[in-house]
Amino acid sequence: MKDSNINVWQTIKQEPGPDLKLFRVRFDHMVNPRNGRASRMVILEAGDSANVVALTPGGRLLFVRQYRFGISDYTLELPGGIVDHGETHQAAARRELSEETGYLSEHWSYLGSIPSNPVFMEGYIYHWLAEGVEKSTVQQLDDGESIEVVSLSLEETRHMLYQGAFLHPHTVNGLLLFFSHWQNQGKDG
Amino acid sequence: MKDSNINVWQTIKQEPGPDLKLFRVRFDHMVNPRNGRASRMVILEAGDSANVVALTPGGRLLFVRQYRFGISDYTLELPGGIVDHGETHQAAARRELSEETGYLSEHWSYLGSIPSNPVFMEGYIYHWLAEGVEKSTVQQLDDGESIEVVSLSLEETRHMLYQGAFLHPHTVNGLLLFFSHWQNQGKDG
Repeated sequence: MKDSNINVWQTIKQEPGPDLKLFRVRFDHMVNPRNGRASRMVILEAGDSANVVALTPGGRLLFVRQYRFGISDYTLELPGGIVDHGETHQAAARRELSEETGYLSEHWSYLGSIPSNPVFMEGYIYHWLAEGVEKSTVQQLDDGESIEVVSLSLEETRHMLYQGAFLHPHTVNGLLLFFSHWQNQGKDG
Repeated sequence: MKDSNINVWQTIKQEPGPDLKLFRVRFDHMVNPRNGRASRMVILEAGDSANVVALTPGGRLLFVRQYRFGISDYTLELPGGIVDHGETHQAAARRELSEETGYLSEHWSYLGSIPSNPVFMEGYIYHWLAEGVEKSTVQQLDDGESIEVVSLSLEETRHMLYQGAFLHPHTVNGLLLFFSHWQNQGKDG
């Protein structure tokens, strides 16, 4: 990958757009270094999120099953959610695991991050591993949430991952980095 | 995964929102089956997309390096783009590979799909494999595009994938399904 410092897109104007609750819309007017032409790009000013690969002492992974309005269907996803203002992404991971599943852990490792969608979204997803999770409290859900906790073995999870059975790209990336980390630790699964 | 037909979210109203070019905004007012409360969910009515794992006769994979406005940085991604109205996703994969890289192929296999983001987007990404790709024409870019074609070996690509080095979740999912398919075919790499 070579560097292209000369070949830089210039921002000529930024306009605010509507506030859509999950994100604010911004329009960036950008000059293409290839042809000097300006284009109006839509950017969603979204915050960061965190999700959690939560491993029980018995070697099972926790997932949340919930209805997703974008695709009008249920998904199985890693627990997670938006990082609140002033919160670290590790604190958000811990809070979301507790709120969505009632499970807690004292053993946290950072797995990596990925942009939510680099084309038009600003935020990143931070992936955390919580080992030895135990059911310690009750779910605390928002009005707009209805979540069922499901557990799968490592082998079931890996099989589903490579079959393309998980429907959320951020769950796919978190699981991929988890299995990579797990293998690097010399662990089975 | 058990079925939850009783536990169904009801749509009580849909309102159109602003047209943001890449997608139209819609607000769905949904009743939560857990508590009977209504919430206003934002949905982006986005079309489907296709991306392509393009393998050269020499065993290298093609990537496009371009500036992404969401994260204000360059990414390496699989070639791809939006499925046009009335177009099949395979035709879109073929067209986008040609436009973005100038490479063509006669050997196409379908790898699978994933929702763009099931939380608030309607569209899916369809992943295609093009084997034996050859440089046959010139890039044809939109005004708002500036794209450099980069090739990586299978081993470099796999290493980057498991390191979390690719910054687009849809590229990660396409590559994951490609390596799964490739291994199932009993091929090396």
